[in-house]
Amino acid sequence: MGNEDVLRYISPGAWSLVEPLISSRAKGIISTLITFLEDVIPAEHLYHSQISDDPAKRWKTVPSVLPKLQRRAKDLGLWNLWLSGGEFQNLAGGQGGGLTNLEYAIMAEIMGHSLVIAPQACNCSAPDTGNMEVLARFGTKDQKQKYLTRLLDGTIRSSFAMTEFGIASSDATNLKNTSAQASGSGLKLIGHKWWISGAGDPRNEIHIVLAVTDPSNSSPYKRHSLLLVDPRAKGVEIVRPMTVFGYDDAPEGHCEVKYNGVQVDFETGVVGGKAGLGRGFEMIQARLGPGRLHHCMRAVGAASRALDLLLLRATDPARKTFGKQLRGHGTVLADIAHCRAEIEQARFLVLSAARQIDLNRAKGALKEIGISKFTVPGVALRVLDRAMQVYGAEGISQDQPLAAMYAGLRTLRYADGPDEVHIQQIGKTELKRVDELRERAERIARVRAKL
Amino acid sequence: MGNEDVLRYISPGAWSLVEPLISSRAKGIISTLITFLEDVIPAEHLYHSQISDDPAKRWKTVPSVLPKLQRRAKDLGLWNLWLSGGEFQNLAGGQGGGLTNLEYAIMAEIMGHSLVIAPQACNCSAPDTGNMEVLARFGTKDQKQKYLTRLLDGTIRSSFAMTEFGIASSDATNLKNTSAQASGSGLKLIGHKWWISGAGDPRNEIHIVLAVTDPSNSSPYKRHSLLLVDPRAKGVEIVRPMTVFGYDDAPEGHCEVKYNGVQVDFETGVVGGKAGLGRGFEMIQARLGPGRLHHCMRAVGAASRALDLLLLRATDPARKTFGKQLRGHGTVLADIAHCRAEIEQARFLVLSAARQIDLNRAKGALKEIGISKFTVPGVALRVLDRAMQVYGAEGISQDQPLAAMYAGLRTLRYADGPDEVHIQQIGKTELKRVDELRERAERIARVRAKL
Amino acid sequence: MGNEDVLRYISPGAWSLVEPLISSRAKGIISTLITFLEDVIPAEHLYHSQISDDPAKRWKTVPSVLPKLQRRAKDLGLWNLWLSGGEFQNLAGGQGGGLTNLEYAIMAEIMGHSLVIAPQACNCSAPDTGNMEVLARFGTKDQKQKYLTRLLDGTIRSSFAMTEFGIASSDATNLKNTSAQASGSGLKLIGHKWWISGAGDPRNEIHIVLAVTDPSNSSPYKRHSLLLVDPRAKGVEIVRPMTVFGYDDAPEGHCEVKYNGVQVDFETGVVGGKAGLGRGFEMIQARLGPGRLHHCMRAVGAASRALDLLLLRATDPARKTFGKQLRGHGTVLADIAHCRAEIEQARFLVLSAARQIDLNRAKGALKEIGISKFTVPGVALRVLDRAMQVYGAEGISQDQPLAAMYAGLRTLRYADGPDEVHIQQIGKTELKRVDELRERAERIARVRAKL
Amino acid sequence: MGNEDVLRYISPGAWSLVEPLISSRAKGIISTLITFLEDVIPAEHLYHSQISDDPAKRWKTVPSVLPKLQRRAKDLGLWNLWLSGGEFQNLAGGQGGGLTNLEYAIMAEIMGHSLVIAPQACNCSAPDTGNMEVLARFGTKDQKQKYLTRLLDGTIRSSFAMTEFGIASSDATNLKNTSAQASGSGLKLIGHKWWISGAGDPRNEIHIVLAVTDPSNSSPYKRHSLLLVDPRAKGVEIVRPMTVFGYDDAPEGHCEVKYNGVQVDFETGVVGGKAGLGRGFEMIQARLGPGRLHHCMRAVGAASRALDLLLLRATDPARKTFGKQLRGHGTVLADIAHCRAEIEQARFLVLSAARQIDLNRAKGALKEIGISKFTVPGVALRVLDRAMQVYGAEGISQDQPLAAMYAGLRTLRYADGPDEVHIQQIGKTELKRVDELRERAERIARVRAKL
Repeated sequence: MGNEDVLRYISPGAWSLVEPLISSRAKGIISTLITFLEDVIPAEHLYHSQISDDPAKRWKTVPSVLPKLQRRAKDLGLWNLWLSGGEFQNLAGGQGGGLTNLEYAIMAEIMGHSLVIAPQACNCSAPDTGNMEVLARFGTKDQKQKYLTRLLDGTIRSSFAMTEFGIASSDATNLKNTSAQASGSGLKLIGHKWWISGAGDPRNEIHIVLAVTDPSNSSPYKRHSLLLVDPRAKGVEIVRPMTVFGYDDAPEGHCEVKYNGVQVDFETGVVGGKAGLGRGFEMIQARLGPGRLHHCMRAVGAASRALDLLLLRATDPARKTFGKQLRGHGTVLADIAHCRAEIEQARFLVLSAARQIDLNRAKGALKEIGISKFTVPGVALRVLDRAMQVYGAEGISQDQPLAAMYAGLRTLRYADGPDEVHIQQIGKTELKRVDELRERAERIARVRAKL
Repeated sequence: MGNEDVLRYISPGAWSLVEPLISSRAKGIISTLITFLEDVIPAEHLYHSQISDDPAKRWKTVPSVLPKLQRRAKDLGLWNLWLSGGEFQNLAGGQGGGLTNLEYAIMAEIMGHSLVIAPQACNCSAPDTGNMEVLARFGTKDQKQKYLTRLLDGTIRSSFAMTEFGIASSDATNLKNTSAQASGSGLKLIGHKWWISGAGDPRNEIHIVLAVTDPSNSSPYKRHSLLLVDPRAKGVEIVRPMTVFGYDDAPEGHCEVKYNGVQVDFETGVVGGKAGLGRGFEMIQARLGPGRLHHCMRAVGAASRALDLLLLRATDPARKTFGKQLRGHGTVLADIAHCRAEIEQARFLVLSAARQIDLNRAKGALKEIGISKFTVPGVALRVLDRAMQVYGAEGISQDQPLAAMYAGLRTLRYADGPDEVHIQQIGKTELKRVDELRERAERIARVRAKL
Repeated sequence: MGNEDVLRYISPGAWSLVEPLISSRAKGIISTLITFLEDVIPAEHLYHSQISDDPAKRWKTVPSVLPKLQRRAKDLGLWNLWLSGGEFQNLAGGQGGGLTNLEYAIMAEIMGHSLVIAPQACNCSAPDTGNMEVLARFGTKDQKQKYLTRLLDGTIRSSFAMTEFGIASSDATNLKNTSAQASGSGLKLIGHKWWISGAGDPRNEIHIVLAVTDPSNSSPYKRHSLLLVDPRAKGVEIVRPMTVFGYDDAPEGHCEVKYNGVQVDFETGVVGGKAGLGRGFEMIQARLGPGRLHHCMRAVGAASRALDLLLLRATDPARKTFGKQLRGHGTVLADIAHCRAEIEQARFLVLSAARQIDLNRAKGALKEIGISKFTVPGVALRVLDRAMQVYGAEGISQDQPLAAMYAGLRTLRYADGPDEVHIQQIGKTELKRVDELRERAERIARVRAKL
Repeated sequence: MGNEDVLRYISPGAWSLVEPLISSRAKGIISTLITFLEDVIPAEHLYHSQISDDPAKRWKTVPSVLPKLQRRAKDLGLWNLWLSGGEFQNLAGGQGGGLTNLEYAIMAEIMGHSLVIAPQACNCSAPDTGNMEVLARFGTKDQKQKYLTRLLDGTIRSSFAMTEFGIASSDATNLKNTSAQASGSGLKLIGHKWWISGAGDPRNEIHIVLAVTDPSNSSPYKRHSLLLVDPRAKGVEIVRPMTVFGYDDAPEGHCEVKYNGVQVDFETGVVGGKAGLGRGFEMIQARLGPGRLHHCMRAVGAASRALDLLLLRATDPARKTFGKQLRGHGTVLADIAHCRAEIEQARFLVLSAARQIDLNRAKGALKEIGISKFTVPGVALRVLDRAMQVYGAEGISQDQPLAAMYAGLRTLRYADGPDEVHIQQIGKTELKRVDELRERAERIARVRAKL
């Protein structure tokens, strides 16, 4: 394979280190994906223009360009690439890529160049991927048939309802304001959530809701279950869309939702059926690890797109100021160099975390995922900010994708655990090395004393 | 005067340095303003809720709470505080505060706590203040009567149309795509501008438009004039509102505007009448200096508001995570300390620049204004970002003012000259000290040689 | 007074804010001090060359240029300027400047340009100033006569022995390894200290030693006393000079010292005599507050010196690279601008803290002192680092004062409390505002609810 | 091979990405090297104590522990590891490691833990490695026999004399103050250099001196030659050792040297003999690329050592302050996490640059080397600074290796090209992508227009 197209997206420095670990099949997919991406980016403007400003219609239609892109992605074999190999692929019935996480990391970065659309077009976008993972791992046969099949096929979408109104959700054991109590042959769900991504979407067919079902369990990690709620069920109230720096991200949205006594059945309405009761925390853990990293992978791509845009503007012959192209002014070249250096480093963090997942599963990759989680979004935001600055007013407007990407990526600094939590966690992980270090230091002291 | 209320807004460190320079009348106004502010902040939510989501109405109504607040500000003597003393006050017919810039700096900071509303409520908001300044200094008697009087009274609003579509406007000599040519008894204006703040506003009665009127003048600084255009005149086309991150800032807006052959008269349609032709650059300079600093003053207030909100959340007993209030976690206390330290420093920059304007006019305060310009917005953005982070998802949503303030203040990093331009400028200003330094160094070398 | 000479050292922005608070006598001293400084700087090289490389002589002689400078400073009325007015001046028998702390802050900054020599030349250097303060406030009449008089006169020098070997001294209650027990008619001192500045100096006549004298006192703050130890007394062992980076700062030094059973008398050997027993913590507090700020004042001056040197090198016509002066390359101008902006801000922190001490004594200025303490040394180090970078290899060598100043100022980031402690402290101080903020927030919520 | 020992030095994230590219022979060497390092570290204190304080002896003896360690390294097969495989190995007569640069990068990092001694002990230290490279590539047979053999054997040491006194050497074409003119049967060298590392060393047998030999050549890159000068030859004057933050790094030193008419012969005294005349720039290029990266490799190791030391202190039960171990205070855990994250990223930059050299030689790895060059030393300095801060006064003293490592690594920010030059260079390298980006952007615009 001539890697020239890859090298336009992934630097030689990174590619030459990982290339021996990428199968030739994956290399082929990467090439196809790059070609596809270069047809997705031109559609971004159309996509946004197809979302109505009229509040009455804004949440009712999906831009018609999207299903076209999805069809094309399927035809090209770019569908469900996130479905990594091994155990999970079997659970998902043999569909999907069967790729390693390392291979997918490269692909997700490329999709990240078109952060909003490309992942959707390839059925690789949150929260659906995580929801499919939960259903594949823990769903009953019926639940898989009813929801997983259609999610894998991209015909429906889904929400994950975890964050609660008025609660510091970064400590998930705080989540107490949504609970389901025995009622009739099932459970009655009462609760108040917000930031339920995708809940505004007309394609949405399922909310997976974290709710307390066993409040008196002695372990705070065994009190919750995941419930499956039909968004059209009685008692589901979409209160309002939340905005992210002014964006409502219609038609998917990030909604405030009330569950006003929604009736769910044990077998169909609890993930895993009755046996799934109390296993909510276990199930959300399974979805968080790789999910966090997927966000980071895409963030590297978004940052790369921003740097590409920065370069175009800085060298735009029509944008001279004081007689020089912007690249000739003060710190612009230095900004470019720093962007490049930071993107390189961020990418390596992501690739090494993906490799660790391949070798040791998400559980064995917590350190690498954590470092990526608190580093990569910050890098992407800095690169985006520099690009916005070079574009001036246009950079923060609807005429460039930068501000919208900024807003989207800014959420990653607190979603799935704020930076601060991950930083503390990595700090504590390092402390685990102290016993070995102290032993070594004591040996050094002994040897030194003898010299 | 007991300064206790001031000290809740301005730190003792800053207050005790400037207090000897604040008149007792100004101290009284500050106290009144603080009381007023604490009634403005509760109205913020209502203000935003009174702006319709319906695109058909969104640009047609002004939130009804605003005129009520304006009436109250007038009654309390909090109107047109920005009108500093001396020459300009006379030009404005004796209205306004007659305060020093230093005194106004304190007040503008306090207004900055409610960044969107308080300045409007006190008729101290951009772009009107700068436009009034231009009219007062350079307008004909008729222009003053027609526009200035009503702007000072707050019954109409205005726009300043400078930035051009597709042009790197940070070098104003680039502005060539809007020009006015002799036509009939006046000029015909053809041009394409964008980011025309306030152009969407139903109260808007005047655009002040920078246009080329003498393209072949040998000096690039004498080719432009300021034209007065009625937004309802034939040929004025409001193309679309631009968005800042995802905010359109209705009803004022930041609009793309085309002037498709708008006829203007020499005497009424050129600022200063026929004698004002070719003086556009001189006139915009007059408005930029203090205007830049006004933004910085308010930015300090916005940052202070953000820190106050951060403190409330960090100590919210309902927001414990992992058993502790947020303040007990890792770096939160350090973040608070850094916010405090950076706000103190930013405030001093602003106060010293205001003092320099008082002593040496804006022209003699370029260095201090420049340092503020490239430092203060960055400080405010960092403080806002930390506050958003502590609030998690809520912080970037419509439920807190933080993200909207962030978006608004982010524009200050490029508006009226991007940071990079001011940084280079201050660097060059420092270089002017080199002659004196070299002389001193040579003397040192001579003395040293003799020792 | 024409302020032109001041404005070469203190920026107009700062000077114009504080000038109304500076007496005309102080202005005169400032002018004289500037003239003097410009004769001190040429002597720096000679000073260092007069310190022998030979370990046998290195700690035995004082550079002969120093007493000459001291004589001149005395003649010019630049002696003991740190002795602020009011209470303390009386204690010191009417000697010294009688200046406000704000006035002294300007002077100390100017001395900071020649960080090692100018403060010594004016008898304004640590640790002597703090030691004199302790003796003046707490010493017996005899102690004042014996030590204070000569220290004020500059004929002897002194040490302050607090930091203990092998102890985390930033929490002073940890200091337990030096204690004095009743023995004969006095106390026998046994202990192990290090970083005892000035202990290597041939002029040194007194160590003020913090030692446990009442180990079982229920309050950890009442267990220590300050003892007065003659460095030539039996049992005093200077173990070795410590190095700061690679500097030993001979002849003063920062020594490891053992007190091997040194006999001290109650009346002459305990600060304050027998009545001073157990008051060690109270006494060191008195010396720490202004002392911390003195370091910050000088740090601003050191940073200014570094920026001046940077400017000279960046414009050196003999140092062109790639055809341009250094100032023409990439980020040099931006570095200069940032240095300027940061120095301005640091200076304001220091000036406002000094003003607070004037108004509310050190105890009432803890917040302002704390912010200065954790901010100003960092600013100075950044400016120095940029200057060193512009000088390349020469910048870190003995041929420029930069690296030595860097090493000296680096110690301020942990001395008298590490940055981290002060940052936490300021964070906590901010939290004290929460009650008022919460009250205000509740009022806002009530008003909002009624709108 | 069980990689447990490697994983104590190189993180699993990095190791698992590169492990497939490391030969099993190299893995064995790595294990041996780790064992050896853990015997070198205890000898550091002894090494420094064996350097006399007496200026008369300080430059005359080599610590006797060093040859012992060297003998052991040779016995263990840890000698000349830097000698990478391929062409160069042949030139060097088959000696050395025959390792890839990637493999050596791991080893150099491990040696970097003991920055001063381990590289010397393994004959892998600058400037000898670069000098050997020059001699191997460009030396005559006789020059190889006379110098290269002994350098490879570690029996002599060498200097590289490039930097000139009073010249901005970062632009090497500035180097004009050292020149050699025809004289008798050879050249007479007159010049003034400084920062000649190793020139103080009693083992030094050869200076490789960059000197102008053809001043009128039209190409500024063909005017210089490399001369071989015996340090004991007539006319060689060692003026003084320069200090780096107070360290003189005896006995090697960084000396100011004058060449006062030193006679050299064409065949023996010009690298490459007469045919080498005018090829000085070509020869120094050959030595700079990998040399720069070697410094970066070691810097990663130095940073890792600092983090290990930081961890030990932060958890030291004897160092509690305010009742807690340091790790429990404020930002210490966060500092640890940031150190870890930054070290990981720095290491990846180095590894990917080393891999690029393996694939495309140094010339094809300029981008990756450049990014490492301006990033890695900065990372190491930040980690060292945090570690020093946690250690307080001890951290910057002779009792910990931190300050000395800081001083040594600080030089890397300007040596072999200051950060600023490399940053500008990488910025320009990125600009080379613009043609391709613009083509892509135009295609996107065309496709978009058709949608």
